[in-house]
Amino acid sequence: MKALQFTNDDLHVADVPIPSQDDEVLVRVVLSGICNTDLEISKGYAGFEGTLGHEFVGVVEKAPGRTDLEGKRVVGEINAGCGKCALCRAKDPRHCLSRTVLGIHGRDGAHAEFLSLPAENLLEVPDPVSDQQAVFIEPLAAAYGIYEQVPLANHTRTAIIGDGKLGLLTALSYGATSSSTLLVGKHKEKLAIAEAAGVAVSLLDELDPAIHKTFDVVVEASGSESGFSTALDLVRPRGKIVLKSTFSGEPTWAASRVVVDEITIVGSRCGRFEPALRLLECGKLDLSPLVSDEFRLADGVAAMRRAAEPGVLKVFLRP
Amino acid sequence: MKALQFTNDDLHVADVPIPSQDDEVLVRVVLSGICNTDLEISKGYAGFEGTLGHEFVGVVEKAPGRTDLEGKRVVGEINAGCGKCALCRAKDPRHCLSRTVLGIHGRDGAHAEFLSLPAENLLEVPDPVSDQQAVFIEPLAAAYGIYEQVPLANHTRTAIIGDGKLGLLTALSYGATSSSTLLVGKHKEKLAIAEAAGVAVSLLDELDPAIHKTFDVVVEASGSESGFSTALDLVRPRGKIVLKSTFSGEPTWAASRVVVDEITIVGSRCGRFEPALRLLECGKLDLSPLVSDEFRLADGVAAMRRAAEPGVLKVFLRP
Repeated sequence: MKALQFTNDDLHVADVPIPSQDDEVLVRVVLSGICNTDLEISKGYAGFEGTLGHEFVGVVEKAPGRTDLEGKRVVGEINAGCGKCALCRAKDPRHCLSRTVLGIHGRDGAHAEFLSLPAENLLEVPDPVSDQQAVFIEPLAAAYGIYEQVPLANHTRTAIIGDGKLGLLTALSYGATSSSTLLVGKHKEKLAIAEAAGVAVSLLDELDPAIHKTFDVVVEASGSESGFSTALDLVRPRGKIVLKSTFSGEPTWAASRVVVDEITIVGSRCGRFEPALRLLECGKLDLSPLVSDEFRLADGVAAMRRAAEPGVLKVFLRP
Repeated sequence: MKALQFTNDDLHVADVPIPSQDDEVLVRVVLSGICNTDLEISKGYAGFEGTLGHEFVGVVEKAPGRTDLEGKRVVGEINAGCGKCALCRAKDPRHCLSRTVLGIHGRDGAHAEFLSLPAENLLEVPDPVSDQQAVFIEPLAAAYGIYEQVPLANHTRTAIIGDGKLGLLTALSYGATSSSTLLVGKHKEKLAIAEAAGVAVSLLDELDPAIHKTFDVVVEASGSESGFSTALDLVRPRGKIVLKSTFSGEPTWAASRVVVDEITIVGSRCGRFEPALRLLECGKLDLSPLVSDEFRLADGVAAMRRAAEPGVLKVFLRP
């Protein structure tokens, strides 16, 4: 089968064997989405080698011992645990120390004709949710996962930094629940997507200094080194900064400001799919403005180049 | 009066006027302590100019409108607020945006013959607490203040990084309440102080890799850039790192590790004096091993040099 791989510092589409783990479910990929993490991995982040991709919707091809799943349209949580540790026994393998992560750590990913995952990772996609929407389930869950870690009430003054895919998804999912959310970004046309959905927006250059140090929670989703510094400008003393972006390299940070203002920083990675899937199902989120392009899997290298262009949001791959 | 000042990038003992704020209390300083923050300020941290010092015990010389205070032996909380904002009205000016901070921000400090502070900042020192102990109240409150922000039960696995003054104070105050505390440092003779008080210790170089990623809470009190990296090695996924050190410069940090392991970082500065004073009063904390030297205020520059020497803990100044 074809797969978009990153090996030996090289990004290419390769012919590789179809996955054949007997204890896992084989999924035929219908559509996959390129995430910034894929771009970062192709710059060396996480030291991963193999098939990229962790956002997908597919159809179950073969499910040994779970034939009820066969033919079902599914999405899949990306962390696969050991199944034995306390975290896995509590059905949350996201921090299992022996976990593999689809297309990120120790497990081939979704930019391929087929992938395999444990049956317990899969969720059936309800009919009203289109393939294009379903591919967004992983980043939407990541955005929505902030609720798991930080209490956010309607009156919680929240700023989101970054008008890329993750920032927009966060703004759109929050806009549905809070009237006190501000999205800060560098691109008028991207901010307009959130504005159209009723979220307050501001260009970074036009931020009113009067709102410095007034936000209870600031979500850093820009993926840039300067994003954290903007977050420190906006968060109030004793407020919280939620870090969402992973990228290669080690930025500098004003650690002393964190101490003096007694800021809490919350690292936040993967959310659960279930609540995000419910959010999509209720039909209030229009994610179509976030789709920039679609490529054939065979043109995966060009698709990655396209995804890295300024102004581009989600790029899909179709096997 | 004499005062140890840092002005125009120069550290010196100067003759300056006695403070004369009519709405504040004048305190004759009996003993003051040199903190690492003083050393950092003399390297440019916080951009402060004026009289250094924020750890002291003194006797009230003049208290307009509060003559009951005159003659009393006191310590003083170091943040003085505007008195009008919501925080100040709630009697906690530590984050008042208009605050001044004794010897750190907009207010001359304690390495002087006299200082002034608002009456509400002062606490009377109980008789059983010696002058030498009382000078430790500010850093002890800072160490103990972690309890205000992070729940710590007896079974909470806690590592403290740094065997300097703040790390030792944290270890000694925690050792009194937890059986699961490990102090990590680079100096055998400093670690021995905590060990003698019943706290488990380890040299940084001899840390057992098997305890990596096992601590619920890691307190970073080393004041060094590498301390945060050690904290990341020790904290468990979804654990907490408490940042205590302020220093000049902006270190680098592995921000992506914070995201992937969903670590929470809690900046922590000043604690309340009251609980720390009670802890001293009960007589279970022996802080005498933390005292390295005492200088005359007139020899303040030499005292600062001494305080910066490797292996030296608390250095006192006596006017």
